[in-house]
Amino acid sequence: MKIKPIQDYYPDELSYCYGCGRLNKNGHQLKSYWDGDETIAHFTPKPHHIAIPGYVYGGLIASLIDCHGTGSAALASYRAEGREPDSNPPLRFVTASLQVDYLKPTLLGVELELGGKIIEVKKRKVITEITVSANGEITARGKVVAVQMPESLIKNEI
Amino acid sequence: MKIKPIQDYYPDELSYCYGCGRLNKNGHQLKSYWDGDETIAHFTPKPHHIAIPGYVYGGLIASLIDCHGTGSAALASYRAEGREPDSNPPLRFVTASLQVDYLKPTLLGVELELGGKIIEVKKRKVITEITVSANGEITARGKVVAVQMPESLIKNEI
Repeated sequence: MKIKPIQDYYPDELSYCYGCGRLNKNGHQLKSYWDGDETIAHFTPKPHHIAIPGYVYGGLIASLIDCHGTGSAALASYRAEGREPDSNPPLRFVTASLQVDYLKPTLLGVELELGGKIIEVKKRKVITEITVSANGEITARGKVVAVQMPESLIKNEI
Repeated sequence: MKIKPIQDYYPDELSYCYGCGRLNKNGHQLKSYWDGDETIAHFTPKPHHIAIPGYVYGGLIASLIDCHGTGSAALASYRAEGREPDSNPPLRFVTASLQVDYLKPTLLGVELELGGKIIEVKKRKVITEITVSANGEITARGKVVAVQMPESLIKNEI
């Protein structure tokens, strides 16, 4: 069953993120889903997302890890509270810190898969570990510490 | 004296990086310079490089730290070898790991300044610490471990 990605539940005014906002026409519009107890997302880099010939730009990889990390944090937080992402109050996370280890060059021209493991869920802080794979091979690993956005920045309920 | 940025010395085939390649027309074309014993770069995010309204996308900040880190690594490595960036063999670094701490939201709409401190220079590995500032205030800190690109990937001398 393919349900809606977490990013499609974000309130409109918080849906312009360059990495994952559904309303940012210039952005990547990453979509993060549950996949059992882990999370998953897919993204195909464009030809100009190049580092060196044939390989994906590391900054894009960091960006994808960042957004899949905050998306996975939101998914995990709703589940921990035992409620659906279309319930109020909306939960939205921002990144406190990001660690990326580039294990090998990431092939450009294929769809990338991001996997997310939920490491720790607290009321306002969620830690996730994110992998990036190309052709089934993990090329980068990330750790994202996400913190809940201050309520003053979430103006409207959904 | 404003000299050429390190990225303008990269061999043509290694100048397509989305973050800092001078030949990537779709990219950020970041330019890293010496500033005394530290390094400096400037970048003004576009309106669509948004995270939440009014603030810069964290993935872009990670990208800028990444490219200023590898650029600073190249600058430091040439200086350590006592030669200019237009001498052979060319040195070019890729990122082994990237750590970013987001200290506070980064204002969108102003020019960002990146500062780089050279922490460690070895033959094939350079560690730098990078700051991102908006309106003179540091909003993010990064650490970049850069490693020299394998010679097999640098086909042409400059």
